[in-house]
Amino acid sequence: MNRQELIKQIFTKKTFLCVGLDTDAKKIPVHLLDEHDPLFEFNRQIIDATAPYCVAYKPNLAFYEAHGIHGMTAFKKTVNYIKENHPNHFIIADAKRGDIGNTAEMYARTFFGEYDVDALTIAPYMGEDSVKPFLHDEGKWAIVLALTSNPGSQDFQMIEDKFGYRLFETVLTKSQQWGTTENMMFVVGATQGKRFEDIRRYAPDHFLLVPGVGAQGGSLQEVCQYGMTKDCGLLVNSSRGIIYAGEDETFAERAANKARELQQQMAVELEKYAS
Amino acid sequence: MNRQELIKQIFTKKTFLCVGLDTDAKKIPVHLLDEHDPLFEFNRQIIDATAPYCVAYKPNLAFYEAHGIHGMTAFKKTVNYIKENHPNHFIIADAKRGDIGNTAEMYARTFFGEYDVDALTIAPYMGEDSVKPFLHDEGKWAIVLALTSNPGSQDFQMIEDKFGYRLFETVLTKSQQWGTTENMMFVVGATQGKRFEDIRRYAPDHFLLVPGVGAQGGSLQEVCQYGMTKDCGLLVNSSRGIIYAGEDETFAERAANKARELQQQMAVELEKYAS
Repeated sequence: MNRQELIKQIFTKKTFLCVGLDTDAKKIPVHLLDEHDPLFEFNRQIIDATAPYCVAYKPNLAFYEAHGIHGMTAFKKTVNYIKENHPNHFIIADAKRGDIGNTAEMYARTFFGEYDVDALTIAPYMGEDSVKPFLHDEGKWAIVLALTSNPGSQDFQMIEDKFGYRLFETVLTKSQQWGTTENMMFVVGATQGKRFEDIRRYAPDHFLLVPGVGAQGGSLQEVCQYGMTKDCGLLVNSSRGIIYAGEDETFAERAANKARELQQQMAVELEKYAS
Repeated sequence: MNRQELIKQIFTKKTFLCVGLDTDAKKIPVHLLDEHDPLFEFNRQIIDATAPYCVAYKPNLAFYEAHGIHGMTAFKKTVNYIKENHPNHFIIADAKRGDIGNTAEMYARTFFGEYDVDALTIAPYMGEDSVKPFLHDEGKWAIVLALTSNPGSQDFQMIEDKFGYRLFETVLTKSQQWGTTENMMFVVGATQGKRFEDIRRYAPDHFLLVPGVGAQGGSLQEVCQYGMTKDCGLLVNSSRGIIYAGEDETFAERAANKARELQQQMAVELEKYAS
Protein backbone atom coordinates (compact mmCIF):
# COMPACT_ATOMS: atom_id res chain seq x y z
CA MET A 1 0.00 0.00 0.00
CA ASN A 2 1.41 3.40 -0.91
CA ARG A 3 1.46 6.55 1.21
CA GLN A 4 -1.46 8.20 -0.54
CA GLU A 5 -3.74 5.18 -0.05
CA LEU A 6 -2.72 4.93 3.60
CA ILE A 7 -3.54 8.60 4.20
CA LYS A 8 -6.85 8.17 2.41
CA GLN A 9 -7.78 5.25 4.68
CA ILE A 10 -6.87 7.25 7.77
CA PHE A 11 -9.01 10.25 6.87
CA THR A 12 -11.90 8.18 5.56
CA LYS A 13 -12.12 6.00 8.66
CA LYS A 14 -10.95 8.71 11.09
CA THR A 15 -8.46 6.41 12.72
CA PHE A 16 -4.72 5.81 12.68
CA LEU A 17 -4.88 2.76 14.92
CA CYS A 18 -2.67 -0.25 14.33
CA VAL A 19 -3.72 -3.41 16.14
CA GLY A 20 -0.74 -5.48 17.28
CA LEU A 21 -1.30 -9.21 16.88
CA ASP A 22 1.05 -10.40 19.66
CA THR A 23 -0.93 -13.60 19.84
CA ASP A 24 0.23 -15.69 22.79
CA ALA A 25 -1.14 -19.23 23.09
CA LYS A 26 -1.01 -18.79 26.88
CA LYS A 27 -3.23 -15.73 26.86
CA ILE A 28 -5.96 -16.51 24.36
CA PRO A 29 -9.37 -17.64 25.67
CA VAL A 30 -9.28 -21.31 26.65
CA HIS A 31 -12.31 -22.22 24.53
CA LEU A 32 -10.17 -21.54 21.43
CA LEU A 33 -7.58 -24.14 22.35
CA ASP A 34 -9.80 -26.87 20.92
CA GLU A 35 -9.70 -25.26 17.48
CA HIS A 36 -7.51 -26.76 14.78
CA ASP A 37 -5.38 -23.60 14.68
CA PRO A 38 -6.04 -21.56 17.83
CA LEU A 39 -3.67 -18.69 16.98
CA PHE A 40 -5.27 -18.14 13.61
CA GLU A 41 -8.81 -18.53 14.95
CA PHE A 42 -8.10 -15.92 17.62
CA ASN A 43 -6.63 -13.55 15.03
CA ARG A 44 -9.50 -14.08 12.61
CA GLN A 45 -12.09 -13.07 15.20
CA ILE A 46 -10.02 -10.15 16.47
CA ILE A 47 -9.51 -8.90 12.91
CA ASP A 48 -13.17 -9.11 11.92
CA ALA A 49 -14.20 -7.33 15.12
CA THR A 50 -11.64 -4.51 15.01
CA ALA A 51 -11.35 -3.87 11.27
CA PRO A 52 -13.75 -0.89 11.22
CA TYR A 53 -11.68 0.94 13.83
CA CYS A 54 -8.13 0.48 12.61
CA VAL A 55 -6.10 0.97 9.44
CA ALA A 56 -3.30 -1.50 10.14
CA TYR A 57 -2.43 -4.85 11.71
CA LYS A 58 0.96 -5.73 13.09
CA PRO A 59 1.63 -9.42 13.77
CA ASN A 60 4.74 -9.80 15.94
CA LEU A 61 6.77 -12.61 14.41
CA ALA A 62 8.22 -13.80 17.72
CA PHE A 63 4.82 -15.07 18.79
CA TYR A 64 4.44 -17.16 15.64
CA GLU A 65 8.02 -18.41 15.37
CA ALA A 66 7.71 -19.67 18.95
CA HIS A 67 5.41 -22.39 17.61
CA GLY A 68 7.74 -23.43 14.82
CA ILE A 69 6.17 -24.58 11.59
CA HIS A 70 2.62 -24.40 13.01
CA GLY A 71 3.15 -20.86 14.18
CA MET A 72 4.47 -19.71 10.82
CA THR A 73 1.47 -21.32 9.15
CA ALA A 74 -0.79 -19.32 11.47
CA PHE A 75 1.14 -16.15 10.55
CA LYS A 76 0.75 -16.81 6.83
CA LYS A 77 -2.94 -17.61 7.18
CA THR A 78 -3.43 -14.41 9.18
CA VAL A 79 -1.75 -12.27 6.52
CA ASN A 80 -3.76 -13.96 3.77
CA TYR A 81 -6.98 -13.55 5.73
CA ILE A 82 -6.43 -9.80 6.07
CA LYS A 83 -5.52 -9.43 2.40
CA GLU A 84 -8.60 -11.32 1.23
CA ASN A 85 -11.18 -10.01 3.66
CA HIS A 86 -9.89 -6.57 4.63
CA PRO A 87 -7.77 -5.52 1.66
CA ASN A 88 -7.66 -1.85 2.70
CA HIS A 89 -5.67 -2.64 5.84
CA PHE A 90 -1.94 -2.08 5.96
CA ILE A 91 0.03 -5.12 7.20
CA ILE A 92 3.24 -4.73 9.18
CA ALA A 93 5.40 -7.76 9.94
CA ASP A 94 7.07 -6.84 13.21
CA ALA A 95 10.24 -8.85 12.83
CA LYS A 96 12.99 -6.28 13.53
CA ARG A 97 15.33 -7.81 10.98
CA GLY A 98 18.77 -6.36 10.27
CA ASP A 99 21.64 -8.11 8.52
CA ILE A 100 24.28 -7.60 5.82
CA GLY A 101 23.19 -6.79 2.28
CA ASN A 102 22.80 -10.26 0.74
CA THR A 103 20.99 -11.54 3.83
CA ALA A 104 18.75 -8.48 4.05
CA GLU A 105 17.89 -9.13 0.41
CA MET A 106 16.71 -12.62 1.41
CA TYR A 107 14.53 -11.18 4.18
CA ALA A 108 13.01 -8.68 1.74
CA ARG A 109 12.18 -11.51 -0.64
CA THR A 110 10.58 -13.46 2.22
CA PHE A 111 8.41 -10.75 3.68
CA PHE A 112 7.58 -8.71 0.58
CA GLY A 113 7.52 -11.73 -1.77
CA GLU A 114 6.52 -14.94 -0.01
CA TYR A 115 4.28 -13.29 2.63
CA ASP A 116 3.52 -10.09 0.69
CA VAL A 117 3.10 -7.78 3.71
CA ASP A 118 3.25 -4.00 3.26
CA ALA A 119 6.01 -3.26 5.72
CA LEU A 120 8.71 -4.79 7.87
CA THR A 121 10.31 -3.39 11.02
CA ILE A 122 14.10 -3.09 10.71
CA ALA A 123 16.89 -2.77 13.30
CA PRO A 124 19.39 -0.15 12.13
CA TYR A 125 22.56 -1.25 13.96
CA MET A 126 24.24 -2.70 10.84
CA GLY A 127 23.68 0.42 8.73
CA GLU A 128 22.94 1.22 5.11
CA ASP A 129 23.33 -2.14 3.37
CA SER A 130 21.08 -3.74 6.00
CA VAL A 131 18.24 -1.29 5.28
CA LYS A 132 18.39 -0.54 1.54
CA PRO A 133 17.19 -3.94 0.28
CA PHE A 134 13.79 -3.13 1.81
CA LEU A 135 13.39 0.04 -0.25
CA HIS A 136 13.18 -1.37 -3.80
CA ASP A 137 9.59 -2.53 -4.02
CA GLU A 138 6.74 -0.23 -5.01
CA GLY A 139 4.30 0.21 -2.12
CA LYS A 140 6.51 -1.65 0.37
CA TRP A 141 8.04 -0.03 3.45
CA ALA A 142 10.97 -0.34 5.83
CA ILE A 143 10.03 0.78 9.33
CA VAL A 144 13.33 1.58 11.00
CA LEU A 145 13.72 1.46 14.79
CA ALA A 146 14.68 4.92 16.02
CA LEU A 147 13.52 5.39 19.61
CA THR A 148 11.82 2.40 21.20
CA SER A 149 9.57 2.43 24.25
CA ASN A 150 11.20 -0.30 26.36
CA PRO A 151 13.50 0.32 29.37
CA GLY A 152 16.54 -0.83 27.36
CA SER A 153 16.02 2.04 24.91
CA GLN A 154 18.07 4.15 27.37
CA ASP A 155 21.17 1.96 26.99
CA PHE A 156 22.34 2.85 23.50
CA GLN A 157 19.69 4.91 21.68
CA MET A 158 20.18 7.90 24.01
CA ILE A 159 23.98 8.02 23.77
CA GLU A 160 25.13 11.50 22.77
CA ASP A 161 27.85 11.78 20.17
CA LYS A 162 30.60 14.37 20.31
CA PHE A 163 28.45 16.87 18.41
CA GLY A 164 25.57 16.51 20.86
CA TYR A 165 23.35 14.26 18.71
CA ARG A 166 21.79 11.25 20.36
CA LEU A 167 22.03 7.93 18.52
CA PHE A 168 18.30 7.81 17.70
CA GLU A 169 18.61 11.28 16.15
CA THR A 170 21.50 10.16 13.98
CA VAL A 171 19.49 7.10 12.94
CA LEU A 172 16.61 9.42 11.97
CA THR A 173 18.76 11.75 9.88
CA LYS A 174 21.17 9.27 8.34
CA SER A 175 18.61 6.70 7.26
CA GLN A 176 16.58 9.39 5.51
CA GLN A 177 19.42 9.54 2.99
CA TRP A 178 18.56 5.98 1.94
CA GLY A 179 14.80 6.15 1.55
CA THR A 180 11.94 8.59 1.14
CA THR A 181 8.69 9.44 2.93
CA GLU A 182 7.11 6.98 0.48
CA ASN A 183 9.02 3.87 1.57
CA MET A 184 10.41 4.53 5.05
CA MET A 185 8.79 5.02 8.44
CA PHE A 186 10.33 5.12 11.90
CA VAL A 187 9.45 3.41 15.16
CA VAL A 188 9.20 6.04 17.89
CA GLY A 189 7.97 4.99 21.33
CA ALA A 190 5.35 7.07 23.07
CA THR A 191 6.41 6.90 26.67
CA GLN A 192 7.24 10.62 26.62
CA GLY A 193 4.91 12.44 24.25
CA LYS A 194 6.87 15.68 24.36
CA ARG A 195 9.85 13.97 22.78
CA PHE A 196 7.89 13.95 19.50
CA GLU A 197 8.79 17.63 19.18
CA ASP A 198 12.45 16.59 18.80
CA ILE A 199 11.49 13.79 16.43
CA ARG A 200 9.54 16.10 14.14
CA ARG A 201 12.55 18.42 13.96
CA TYR A 202 14.45 15.54 12.30
CA ALA A 203 11.63 13.81 10.45
CA PRO A 204 8.91 16.39 9.75
CA ASP A 205 7.00 14.34 7.17
CA HIS A 206 7.71 10.66 7.74
CA PHE A 207 5.07 8.36 9.11
CA LEU A 208 5.93 7.15 12.62
CA LEU A 209 4.88 3.81 14.04
CA VAL A 210 4.21 4.51 17.71
CA PRO A 211 4.13 1.72 20.30
CA GLY A 212 3.79 2.36 24.02
CA VAL A 213 0.41 4.11 24.14
CA GLY A 214 -1.77 2.53 26.81
CA ALA A 215 -0.16 -0.53 28.44
CA GLN A 216 3.27 1.12 28.46
CA GLY A 217 2.00 4.48 29.70
CA GLY A 218 2.18 6.86 26.73
CA SER A 219 -0.51 9.50 26.21
CA LEU A 220 -2.32 9.56 22.87
CA GLN A 221 -3.13 13.25 23.28
CA GLU A 222 0.49 14.21 23.84
CA VAL A 223 1.71 12.10 20.94
CA CYS A 224 -0.76 13.84 18.64
CA GLN A 225 -0.07 17.33 20.00
CA TYR A 226 3.65 17.00 19.33
CA GLY A 227 3.79 14.37 16.60
CA MET A 228 0.85 14.74 14.22
CA THR A 229 1.32 16.32 10.77
CA LYS A 230 -1.23 17.57 8.25
CA ASP A 231 -1.12 14.08 6.67
CA CYS A 232 -1.56 12.55 10.16
CA GLY A 233 1.90 10.93 9.94
CA LEU A 234 1.18 8.53 12.79
CA LEU A 235 0.26 4.89 13.15
CA VAL A 236 -0.37 4.33 16.85
CA ASN A 237 -0.11 0.70 17.86
CA SER A 238 -1.95 -1.05 20.65
CA SER A 239 -1.51 -4.78 21.20
CA ARG A 240 -2.28 -6.21 24.63
CA GLY A 241 -4.71 -3.41 25.55
CA ILE A 242 -6.98 -4.46 22.69
CA ILE A 243 -6.50 -8.14 21.96
CA TYR A 244 -6.58 -9.27 25.60
CA ALA A 245 -9.38 -6.93 26.70
CA GLY A 246 -11.59 -9.98 27.36
CA GLU A 247 -10.81 -13.52 28.44
CA ASP A 248 -13.97 -15.46 27.57
CA GLU A 249 -16.31 -15.92 24.58
CA THR A 250 -16.80 -12.15 24.45
CA PHE A 251 -13.12 -11.48 23.74
CA ALA A 252 -13.65 -10.24 20.18
CA GLU A 253 -16.50 -7.92 21.21
CA ARG A 254 -14.39 -6.51 24.03
CA ALA A 255 -11.47 -6.01 21.68
CA ALA A 256 -13.80 -4.15 19.31
CA ASN A 257 -14.95 -1.92 22.18
CA LYS A 258 -11.37 -1.02 23.08
CA ALA A 259 -10.51 -0.38 19.45
CA ARG A 260 -13.61 1.79 19.02
CA GLU A 261 -12.70 3.83 22.11
CA LEU A 262 -9.29 4.53 20.64
CA GLN A 263 -10.78 5.29 17.23
CA GLN A 264 -13.10 7.87 18.78
CA GLN A 265 -10.21 9.55 20.57
CA MET A 266 -8.23 9.48 17.34
CA ALA A 267 -11.06 11.13 15.40
CA VAL A 268 -10.91 14.05 17.85
CA GLU A 269 -7.15 14.41 17.46
CA LEU A 270 -7.34 14.26 13.67
CA GLU A 271 -9.95 17.02 13.76
CA LYS A 272 -7.68 19.12 15.97
CA TYR A 273 -4.30 18.77 14.26
CA ALA A 274 -4.71 17.38 10.75
CA SER A 275 -6.83 18.40 7.82
CA MET B 1 27.35 -26.52 25.18
CA ASN B 2 29.26 -24.75 27.90
CA ARG B 3 32.52 -22.80 27.60
CA GLN B 4 34.71 -25.55 28.96
CA GLU B 5 33.39 -28.13 26.48
CA LEU B 6 33.79 -25.68 23.62
CA ILE B 7 37.40 -24.98 24.57
CA LYS B 8 38.05 -28.71 24.87
CA GLN B 9 36.72 -29.31 21.36
CA ILE B 10 38.88 -26.51 19.96
CA PHE B 11 42.11 -27.83 21.47
CA THR B 12 41.33 -31.47 20.74
CA LYS B 13 40.52 -30.88 17.08
CA LYS B 14 42.97 -27.97 16.65
CA THR B 15 40.38 -25.82 14.97
CA PHE B 16 38.13 -22.89 15.83
CA LEU B 17 36.34 -22.90 12.50
CA CYS B 18 32.61 -22.21 12.28
CA VAL B 19 31.00 -23.21 8.98
CA GLY B 20 28.24 -20.81 7.97
CA LEU B 21 25.26 -22.56 6.41
CA ASP B 22 23.99 -19.68 4.24
CA THR B 23 22.30 -22.20 2.02
CA ASP B 24 20.87 -20.49 -1.05
CA ALA B 25 18.65 -22.55 -3.34
CA LYS B 26 20.07 -20.55 -6.27
CA LYS B 27 23.65 -21.52 -5.51
CA ILE B 28 23.53 -25.18 -4.58
CA PRO B 29 24.54 -27.75 -7.22
CA VAL B 30 21.73 -28.32 -9.70
CA HIS B 31 21.73 -32.10 -9.27
CA LEU B 32 20.40 -31.55 -5.71
CA LEU B 33 17.30 -29.72 -6.89
CA ASP B 34 15.63 -33.06 -7.61
CA GLU B 35 15.91 -34.09 -3.97
CA HIS B 36 12.83 -33.96 -1.76
CA ASP B 37 14.47 -31.28 0.43
CA PRO B 38 17.41 -29.77 -1.48
CA LEU B 39 18.46 -27.32 1.26
CA PHE B 40 18.66 -30.06 3.86
CA GLU B 41 20.37 -32.50 1.51
CA PHE B 42 23.01 -29.89 0.68
CA ASN B 43 23.55 -29.17 4.37
CA ARG B 44 23.72 -32.83 5.30
CA GLN B 45 26.51 -33.51 2.83
CA ILE B 46 28.39 -30.32 3.73
CA ILE B 47 28.14 -31.17 7.43
CA ASP B 48 29.36 -34.76 7.07
CA ALA B 49 32.26 -33.60 4.92
CA THR B 50 33.40 -30.67 7.07
CA ALA B 51 32.69 -31.96 10.58
CA PRO B 52 36.27 -33.11 11.29
CA TYR B 53 37.62 -29.62 10.54
CA CYS B 54 35.25 -27.36 12.43
CA VAL B 55 33.77 -26.98 15.91
CA ALA B 56 30.63 -25.05 15.01
CA TYR B 57 27.89 -24.60 12.41
CA LYS B 58 26.00 -21.38 11.86
CA PRO B 59 22.81 -21.61 9.80
CA ASN B 60 21.68 -18.13 8.72
CA LEU B 61 17.95 -17.98 9.31
CA ALA B 62 17.26 -15.59 6.42
CA PHE B 63 18.10 -18.32 3.94
CA TYR B 64 15.59 -20.72 5.49
CA GLU B 65 12.82 -18.22 6.21
CA ALA B 66 12.96 -17.21 2.54
CA HIS B 67 11.35 -20.56 1.73
CA GLY B 68 8.58 -20.20 4.29
CA ILE B 69 7.39 -23.35 5.98
CA HIS B 70 9.59 -25.62 3.81
CA GLY B 71 12.66 -23.58 4.62
CA MET B 72 12.01 -23.68 8.36
CA THR B 73 11.57 -27.44 8.12
CA ALA B 74 14.98 -27.66 6.43
CA PHE B 75 16.46 -25.53 9.23
CA LYS B 76 14.99 -27.75 11.93
CA LYS B 77 16.12 -30.93 10.17
CA THR B 78 19.62 -29.46 9.82
CA VAL B 79 19.84 -28.65 13.53
CA ASN B 80 18.55 -32.10 14.47
CA TYR B 81 20.95 -33.76 12.05
CA ILE B 82 23.93 -32.03 13.66
CA LYS B 83 22.74 -32.85 17.17
CA GLU B 84 22.24 -36.51 16.36
CA ASN B 85 25.25 -37.17 14.17
CA HIS B 86 27.80 -34.62 15.32
CA PRO B 87 26.84 -33.91 18.91
CA ASN B 88 30.14 -32.23 19.78
CA HIS B 89 29.49 -29.36 17.38
CA PHE B 90 28.28 -26.03 18.65
CA ILE B 91 25.20 -24.71 16.79
CA ILE B 92 24.62 -20.99 16.27
CA ALA B 93 21.32 -19.74 14.88
CA ASP B 94 22.29 -16.56 13.06
CA ALA B 95 19.02 -14.69 13.40
CA LYS B 96 20.10 -11.30 14.83
CA ARG B 97 16.99 -10.98 16.93
CA GLY B 98 16.39 -8.01 19.22
CA ASP B 99 13.08 -6.94 20.72
CA ILE B 100 11.47 -5.83 24.00
CA GLY B 101 11.61 -8.13 27.03
CA ASN B 102 8.44 -10.20 26.58
CA THR B 103 9.12 -10.67 22.87
CA ALA B 104 12.79 -11.52 23.44
CA GLU B 105 11.57 -14.13 25.92
CA MET B 106 9.48 -15.69 23.13
CA TYR B 107 12.52 -15.80 20.83
CA ALA B 108 14.59 -17.44 23.57
CA ARG B 109 11.91 -20.09 24.01
CA THR B 110 11.86 -20.68 20.25
CA PHE B 111 15.56 -21.01 19.62
CA PHE B 112 16.73 -22.54 22.91
CA GLY B 113 13.54 -24.58 23.47
CA GLU B 114 11.84 -25.55 20.21
CA TYR B 115 15.04 -25.71 18.10
CA ASP B 116 17.49 -26.29 20.97
CA VAL B 117 20.50 -24.56 19.39
CA ASP B 118 23.46 -23.50 21.55
CA ALA B 119 23.55 -19.84 20.66
CA LEU B 120 21.65 -17.05 18.96
CA THR B 121 23.01 -13.83 17.44
CA ILE B 122 21.42 -10.72 18.99
CA ALA B 123 21.15 -7.11 17.77
CA PRO B 124 21.85 -4.77 20.72
CA TYR B 125 19.99 -1.61 19.62
CA MET B 126 17.08 -2.09 22.05
CA GLY B 127 19.31 -2.58 25.10
CA GLU B 128 19.25 -4.64 28.28
CA ASP B 129 15.75 -6.12 28.30
CA SER B 130 16.25 -7.26 24.68
CA VAL B 131 19.39 -9.23 25.57
CA LYS B 132 18.84 -10.61 29.09
CA PRO B 133 16.18 -13.22 28.22
CA PHE B 134 18.89 -15.11 26.30
CA LEU B 135 21.12 -15.45 29.37
CA HIS B 136 18.99 -17.68 31.61
CA ASP B 137 19.61 -21.12 30.21
CA GLU B 138 22.56 -23.26 31.24
CA GLY B 139 24.90 -23.87 28.31
CA LYS B 140 23.07 -21.41 26.01
CA TRP B 141 24.62 -18.23 24.65
CA ALA B 142 23.72 -14.77 23.40
CA ILE B 143 26.13 -13.61 20.70
CA VAL B 144 25.77 -9.83 20.66
CA LEU B 145 26.61 -7.81 17.55
CA ALA B 146 29.41 -5.39 18.41
CA LEU B 147 31.40 -4.57 15.27
CA THR B 148 30.17 -6.14 12.06
CA SER B 149 32.14 -6.61 8.86
CA ASN B 150 29.72 -5.10 6.33
CA PRO B 151 30.06 -1.61 4.77
CA GLY B 152 27.10 -0.32 6.84
CA SER B 153 29.00 -1.02 10.06
CA GLN B 154 30.55 2.44 9.58
CA ASP B 155 27.18 4.20 9.80
CA PHE B 156 26.34 3.82 13.48
CA GLN B 157 28.75 1.39 15.16
CA MET B 158 31.71 3.77 14.74
CA ILE B 159 29.99 6.87 16.14
CA GLU B 160 32.08 8.41 18.92
CA ASP B 161 30.27 9.58 22.04
CA LYS B 162 31.20 12.71 23.93
CA PHE B 163 33.72 10.77 26.04
CA GLY B 164 35.46 9.40 22.95
CA TYR B 165 33.99 5.88 23.05
CA ARG B 166 32.68 4.44 19.83
CA LEU B 167 29.26 2.79 19.91
CA PHE B 168 30.64 -0.73 19.43
CA GLU B 169 32.94 -0.15 22.41
CA THR B 170 30.01 0.91 24.57
CA VAL B 171 28.09 -2.16 23.42
CA LEU B 172 31.06 -4.31 24.44
CA THR B 173 31.41 -2.78 27.91
CA LYS B 174 27.76 -2.22 28.76
CA SER B 175 26.47 -5.64 27.73
CA GLN B 176 29.15 -7.33 29.82
CA GLN B 177 27.21 -6.07 32.85
CA TRP B 178 24.31 -8.34 31.82
CA GLY B 179 26.09 -11.61 31.11
CA THR B 180 29.33 -13.46 31.71
CA THR B 181 32.07 -15.09 29.66
CA GLU B 182 30.03 -18.29 30.09
CA ASN B 183 26.88 -17.11 28.32
CA MET B 184 27.82 -14.16 26.12
CA MET B 185 29.99 -13.79 23.04
CA PHE B 186 30.38 -10.87 20.64
CA VAL B 187 30.32 -10.61 16.87
CA VAL B 188 33.44 -8.78 15.73
CA GLY B 189 34.17 -8.54 12.00
CA ALA B 190 37.64 -9.30 10.74
CA THR B 191 38.07 -6.76 7.98
CA GLN B 192 40.79 -5.00 9.99
CA GLY B 193 42.67 -7.50 12.11
CA LYS B 194 44.51 -4.85 14.10
CA ARG B 195 41.22 -3.60 15.52
CA PHE B 196 41.14 -6.77 17.64
CA GLU B 197 43.70 -5.07 19.89
CA ASP B 198 41.03 -2.50 20.81
CA ILE B 199 38.43 -5.22 21.20
CA ARG B 200 40.56 -7.22 23.61
CA ARG B 201 41.05 -4.11 25.74
CA TYR B 202 37.28 -4.14 26.37
CA ALA B 203 36.60 -7.87 26.25
CA PRO B 204 39.79 -9.69 27.22
CA ASP B 205 38.21 -13.08 27.88
CA HIS B 206 34.98 -13.33 25.89
CA PHE B 207 34.69 -15.58 22.91
CA LEU B 208 34.33 -13.63 19.68
CA LEU B 209 32.45 -14.84 16.63
CA VAL B 210 34.43 -13.50 13.69
CA PRO B 211 32.90 -13.18 10.22
CA GLY B 212 34.68 -11.58 7.30
CA VAL B 213 37.74 -13.82 7.02
CA GLY B 214 38.26 -14.85 3.41
CA ALA B 215 35.43 -13.67 1.12
CA GLN B 216 35.21 -10.30 2.90
CA GLY B 217 39.00 -9.83 3.01
CA GLY B 218 40.00 -10.30 6.65
CA SER B 219 43.30 -12.02 7.49
CA LEU B 220 43.19 -15.06 9.76
CA GLN B 221 46.78 -14.45 10.89
CA GLU B 222 46.06 -10.88 11.95
CA VAL B 223 42.87 -11.82 13.77
CA CYS B 224 44.80 -14.43 15.74
CA GLN B 225 47.78 -12.19 16.41
CA TYR B 226 45.60 -9.48 17.95
CA GLY B 227 42.53 -11.40 19.06
CA MET B 228 43.48 -14.86 20.34
CA THR B 229 43.55 -15.58 24.08
CA LYS B 230 45.02 -18.50 25.99
CA ASP B 231 41.59 -20.19 25.75
CA CYS B 232 41.55 -19.39 22.01
CA GLY B 233 38.55 -17.10 22.46
CA LEU B 234 37.71 -17.10 18.77
CA LEU B 235 35.21 -18.78 16.49
CA VAL B 236 36.13 -17.78 12.96
CA ASN B 237 33.27 -18.17 10.52
CA SER B 238 33.49 -18.94 6.84
CA SER B 239 30.34 -19.43 4.79
CA ARG B 240 30.51 -18.90 1.03
CA GLY B 241 34.25 -19.68 0.84
CA ILE B 242 33.57 -23.21 2.07
CA ILE B 243 30.06 -24.25 1.12
CA TYR B 244 30.23 -22.97 -2.45
CA ALA B 245 33.80 -24.11 -3.15
CA GLY B 246 32.47 -26.55 -5.76
CA GLU B 247 29.46 -26.45 -8.06
CA ASP B 248 29.06 -30.07 -9.16
CA GLU B 249 28.87 -33.55 -7.60
CA THR B 250 32.20 -32.90 -5.89
CA PHE B 251 30.86 -29.94 -3.88
CA ALA B 252 31.10 -31.66 -0.49
CA GLU B 253 34.62 -32.88 -1.12
CA ARG B 254 35.68 -29.40 -2.22
CA ALA B 255 34.05 -27.89 0.85
CA ALA B 256 35.97 -30.39 3.00
CA ASN B 257 39.22 -29.36 1.28
CA LYS B 258 38.59 -25.68 2.01
CA ALA B 259 37.65 -26.44 5.60
CA ARG B 260 40.75 -28.59 6.03
CA GLU B 261 42.96 -25.81 4.66
CA LEU B 262 41.54 -23.41 7.23
CA GLN B 263 41.85 -26.01 9.99
CA GLN B 264 45.52 -26.47 9.18
CA GLN B 265 46.13 -22.72 9.33
CA MET B 266 44.21 -22.58 12.59
CA ALA B 267 46.32 -25.35 14.13
CA VAL B 268 49.41 -23.23 13.46
CA GLU B 269 47.86 -20.15 15.08
CA LEU B 270 46.70 -22.10 18.13
CA GLU B 271 50.23 -23.41 18.54
CA LYS B 272 51.60 -19.86 18.34
CA TYR B 273 49.23 -17.94 20.62
CA ALA B 274 47.21 -20.31 22.80
CA SER B 275 48.20 -23.12 25.09
